[in-house]
Amino acid sequence: MTTTVEERLDQLGAPLPEPRPAAGNYRGFVQVGDLLFTSGQGADGHVGRVGENVTLEDGVAAARACMLNLLAQVRAATGSLDRVAKIVKVLGFVNAVPEFTQHPAVLDGASNLLVEAFGPDIGAHARTAVGVSHLPKGFIVEVEMIVQLRD
Amino acid sequence: MTTTVEERLDQLGAPLPEPRPAAGNYRGFVQVGDLLFTSGQGADGHVGRVGENVTLEDGVAAARACMLNLLAQVRAATGSLDRVAKIVKVLGFVNAVPEFTQHPAVLDGASNLLVEAFGPDIGAHARTAVGVSHLPKGFIVEVEMIVQLRD
Amino acid sequence: MTTTVEERLDQLGAPLPEPRPAAGNYRGFVQVGDLLFTSGQGADGHVGRVGENVTLEDGVAAARACMLNLLAQVRAATGSLDRVAKIVKVLGFVNAVPEFTQHPAVLDGASNLLVEAFGPDIGAHARTAVGVSHLPKGFIVEVEMIVQLRD
Repeated sequence: MTTTVEERLDQLGAPLPEPRPAAGNYRGFVQVGDLLFTSGQGADGHVGRVGENVTLEDGVAAARACMLNLLAQVRAATGSLDRVAKIVKVLGFVNAVPEFTQHPAVLDGASNLLVEAFGPDIGAHARTAVGVSHLPKGFIVEVEMIVQLRD
Repeated sequence: MTTTVEERLDQLGAPLPEPRPAAGNYRGFVQVGDLLFTSGQGADGHVGRVGENVTLEDGVAAARACMLNLLAQVRAATGSLDRVAKIVKVLGFVNAVPEFTQHPAVLDGASNLLVEAFGPDIGAHARTAVGVSHLPKGFIVEVEMIVQLRD
Repeated sequence: MTTTVEERLDQLGAPLPEPRPAAGNYRGFVQVGDLLFTSGQGADGHVGRVGENVTLEDGVAAARACMLNLLAQVRAATGSLDRVAKIVKVLGFVNAVPEFTQHPAVLDGASNLLVEAFGPDIGAHARTAVGVSHLPKGFIVEVEMIVQLRD
C-alpha cells in the first residue's frame, strides 16, 4: 500500500487546510495545458515584518503555512495531490527590514515541505526569493507556484 | 451580431491605447507555443506612492491603466483581442508606504477590467499582488501577465 | 565555421562562470516540456543598494553578472547554450533607495548581454523590472528567466 501525498502531509503534522477564498476579483488557480498557475498565497495569522516585530523563525513558519495554502489550491484544482507530476517553480516574497539578507532560509520553510511531501523527484523545484517592504494584509510571506500535472 | 472585445472596451470607456514603446533592450511580448508572455507595464502619468502622495483610488486607476497598456501589447501580438483564449496569470507590484495592506483592492483595477472585457470564462485569472518600495519612472503600479491564445 | 554562443561570450569578455550552488532547498532550474524555468540568481560580490552605497553603473554590472550566472545554469541544464531556441521572459529585481526610477537601465545590463550573445532573433525577450528594498545576501540585483529549448 502506497502512502498518498495527503497522508504524508498528515504524518508531517501539516494537514491540508481548506482553500482560502480569493481576496479580490481573481481565482486561486488557472490550468493551461498541463501547467497549473497558482495565485499568490499568504497565511492568515502570519503577519509582521521580519527583523522588526517577528523573527526569522516566524518567517520560516509563515512560508510553510503559505505552501500549505498553495497545496490546498492545487488539491482544489486537481482533486488529489497525487496528480502533481512536478513542482516547477516557486516565487516567494519576504516582508522584512532593509537589512534582511536570509530570504533563502525563510523560503526553505515552503521548499522543505514540498520535498518532504512529494519526495525529491517530484518536489524539487526552481525558486526565486526576494524581499519586499509590504504585503497584502501585512503578511510576513507571500508565495506563488507553477506545477505540472499528470492525467 | 457579436461584440468584439475592443468594442466592449470602448463601451466601458476604456479604449485601447497605442502600445507603449519599450523602456530598454526588450520586447513588449514573446509568444511561445500558445502562451503569450508580456513585459511589465506601468502607466504614464500614474506616478507616486500610495499612502504618501497618492490615494488608494489613484492606485486602482493606475492598475486599470496598466492593464490597458498590457492589452495594447496583446493586440499588437495577435491583431485582435478576440484571439485570447484565457487570461492565465497576472502579477502586480504596488508602490506604497510600508504600512499599506490593500494590494488586492489596487489590483482589482486591472482584474475587473479583464473580467468586464472578456467575461468571466476567459477573463478570470490567477493573480499575485505584492508591495514594493519603488518602480520604474516612479509608477504607482506595474503589472505583467500571461495569456493563452487561440488560432 | 559558425561561432557558438559560448565562444561569443568569450569574445565579449564575459566567459561563462561555474554554476553557483543553490542557497537553499531548491534546484537551479526545472525543465517542463520545452520550457526551462531558472531560479533567481544574484551575483557574488555585487552587493549594495543603488543610490545608497553603490551607483547605477554598479547596478548595470550586477545585472550582467546575474545573467552570466543564469546562463551557467542554462548550460548545466542543456549541455550547450546553442540549444536555446528563444529567451522568453526575464524578471529582474533591483535593490535601490525609494527615489530610484532607472530600473530599465539596470536590467539592460542583463538584456544587452542576451542580445549580444544570442543575436536579436533568439535573444530579444519580454521583461519586467521592479524595485525592492532588500535581496538575499544583500545583492544589488536578482534575475530569473524562462527559456525555450530546442532538441
